Amino acid sequence: MLVVQKFGGTSVGTLERIRTVAERVLARQRSGDRVVVVVSAMAGETNRLIELANALHAIAHAQHAAHNGDPGPDSKGWVAPLKRDDAGFERELSQLMSTGEKVSAALVSMAIQDLGGASVSLVGHQLGVTTQGSYTNARIVSIDAERIHALLDAGTIVVCAGFQGLDEAGDVTTLGRGGSDTSAVALAAAIVADECEILTDVDGVYTSDPRVVPSARKLDRITHEEMLELASLGSKVLQIRAVEFAMKFNVPVHVRHSQHLREGTRIVPETPNMEAVLVAGVALDRDEAKVTLTNCPDVPGTIASLFTVLGERGIIVDMIIQNASRDGKTDVTFTVPQDELQRTTEAIGELELVCAPGVTLLTDAQIAKISIVGVGMRTHAGVAAKAFSVLAHEGVNIQMVSTSEIKVSVVVEEKYGELALRALHDGFGLGTP
Amino acid sequence: MLVVQKFGGTSVGTLERIRTVAERVLARQRSGDRVVVVVSAMAGETNRLIELANALHAIAHAQHAAHNGDPGPDSKGWVAPLKRDDAGFERELSQLMSTGEKVSAALVSMAIQDLGGASVSLVGHQLGVTTQGSYTNARIVSIDAERIHALLDAGTIVVCAGFQGLDEAGDVTTLGRGGSDTSAVALAAAIVADECEILTDVDGVYTSDPRVVPSARKLDRITHEEMLELASLGSKVLQIRAVEFAMKFNVPVHVRHSQHLREGTRIVPETPNMEAVLVAGVALDRDEAKVTLTNCPDVPGTIASLFTVLGERGIIVDMIIQNASRDGKTDVTFTVPQDELQRTTEAIGELELVCAPGVTLLTDAQIAKISIVGVGMRTHAGVAAKAFSVLAHEGVNIQMVSTSEIKVSVVVEEKYGELALRALHDGFGLGTP
Repeated sequence: MLVVQKFGGTSVGTLERIRTVAERVLARQRSGDRVVVVVSAMAGETNRLIELANALHAIAHAQHAAHNGDPGPDSKGWVAPLKRDDAGFERELSQLMSTGEKVSAALVSMAIQDLGGASVSLVGHQLGVTTQGSYTNARIVSIDAERIHALLDAGTIVVCAGFQGLDEAGDVTTLGRGGSDTSAVALAAAIVADECEILTDVDGVYTSDPRVVPSARKLDRITHEEMLELASLGSKVLQIRAVEFAMKFNVPVHVRHSQHLREGTRIVPETPNMEAVLVAGVALDRDEAKVTLTNCPDVPGTIASLFTVLGERGIIVDMIIQNASRDGKTDVTFTVPQDELQRTTEAIGELELVCAPGVTLLTDAQIAKISIVGVGMRTHAGVAAKAFSVLAHEGVNIQMVSTSEIKVSVVVEEKYGELALRALHDGFGLGTP
Repeated sequence: MLVVQKFGGTSVGTLERIRTVAERVLARQRSGDRVVVVVSAMAGETNRLIELANALHAIAHAQHAAHNGDPGPDSKGWVAPLKRDDAGFERELSQLMSTGEKVSAALVSMAIQDLGGASVSLVGHQLGVTTQGSYTNARIVSIDAERIHALLDAGTIVVCAGFQGLDEAGDVTTLGRGGSDTSAVALAAAIVADECEILTDVDGVYTSDPRVVPSARKLDRITHEEMLELASLGSKVLQIRAVEFAMKFNVPVHVRHSQHLREGTRIVPETPNMEAVLVAGVALDRDEAKVTLTNCPDVPGTIASLFTVLGERGIIVDMIIQNASRDGKTDVTFTVPQDELQRTTEAIGELELVCAPGVTLLTDAQIAKISIVGVGMRTHAGVAAKAFSVLAHEGVNIQMVSTSEIKVSVVVEEKYGELALRALHDGFGLGTP
């Protein structure tokens, strides 16, 4: 069996833990498997590196301010500090951050050697991970599997630095936060691994957040589609792009705990008998805010212009609801990430739309979104209705609803969020296997 | 003018200093020059990384010991920790250590961008530095100058991570301690730079160690040959391989202070008028030990076997003196690095030679070697004689003498080392320009 084992930052966060990782990897190899390891940076290391860049930038900013705010270069040639989204800066940031995984890959490989195993660490240019897109949020387009297979053939454990690749110019790129998950799944696809294990500090994927819902239960299996919905809803177990990769290339993924050997959750393709399970999990998202524009003129293109402007600024709109028109006027309500709320209202403020008489802009950050996810919804009706009745029974008012093929999301007042989550979790019988 | 500026670990040791480096580099470019920067790791970073590897190894060692000293693998598969000179381990160590320079290169490049300059950092695989030899003490065999020239043509400052290269397999190699000096000079040779500046925390090369000899004077110029002798004698200003590179490829090197703009010392090829200067500098080396074998049988091959054994163990022998034979017996005295003294006596203990009747092994670590260096000695006799008379006048007994074309070295009792150094420095008129 050919397996990819991915260990996150916490699992390699200390030298003792690195030693434990090495023992686990080596035991797996000695049981007869071929093992490729993918590691994140030691916990805290990526932040330390980013903080170096931030502190350097702060010095530049302070010095510039001390030499007055003149927009042109002063006598020493100082100009205003660059914007952080400058491509040259992003390139250096990526070069800087990618060292974190290089360090942990070398240390894990050493630890395996210390245990008597044969091990080689591979970093960016040695891995042949080619990427496209921006320096710090690149997408993997291809992986050269040849060297990895040659090493595995020789009985060597291959330890890969996650999170990084090279663009076509040979410049170091990084895959964005949580990118090591994507590295692992993409590698597993490239080398046609039998399984990609994501070893982490939880037992697997739960029916809900156990810190909020005491009766939450670990799932033995979950479909790619359900995992995608849950990952995008703030279930931080697995990066969303990793799930997309797994689905696209049909990579069996196994999320399990790095500190013990019990089975975790397998992420699998959908099969017919799964429809028996109506709901896989419920998730709570407190990071959105609600925006309402009332009395908008209901003329073709008016509402479109609103979302065009938001799209241009890269603001991701989640739920959108528009009422039926009354007297040529309509209300539109949508949600955006809370930390984009200010940019959202600024963008709206620049629209002609808001100058129309009677148009009012309302915002509310005190909301919670609860989502019920399950592929069984494809063939079973009535999930939304049941959710409404569960919430009504608890006296929780529903502010917004949106449904998709395998998901029902409701927005409620933030203070009712946890109550609603628990009620729906138990209402759909998730606490009892 | 095309210049390579190399900044050592102290010069990039803090973010404030990195900012200062960026200002200096940018000012140089704005004065009309093309600038390539080579940086070491931030002071302390290489040691931090090595310490991580050491600590990891210590854990392996402790766990192995706790599971008893059984030579075979135990129930958990543990075997004895690897020797540190294992090639696989060296490979990982190199991969680990090379991240230090990658971090400082990215930060220096960011700092230049913050000042409004155009800058790109290049690391191992992007630099095209190909090496041969061991992973952690590799030798540069070629450098691809194309990308650097293309960037310079575009008005970009190129910031290179020193100390590292790639072997033909694409594995990361490092150039040994002080390797960034060698990187800088080799890069300067490859891109045919007009000058290679070594920016450091001293004003230049001195006639002697200013901490010991208060009248020591900064030299404006020194020849490659003299610098080679001084570098090998513990004058830590410049790595010896960097000087060899500079001599071989005729790279003009300028050693100067990183914190001010005053001229430092230029390392230049020898020219005829230099012979007027008899002595360039005197150096003190307290790190050697003296070994004497008395009453050795003076048979062909006996003494050769001694130095063969030491050579096989990689022990570098410096001075060697052998007396004229008396009654078929001879005494041989030589010096080795103090920290190799124990390995030296162990090696000698295994020789047949020492079993011969009357042979006695004497060692003395309490010695100091003073060397007088100058290309003028090629054409001027009497330097050794003058040195003897200076030391005799101070009542310092000379234990050993060795001379080469441009150097006279004497060994004295360690407690007289500093006195002898000062006496010779002033005796040869080095304190007065």
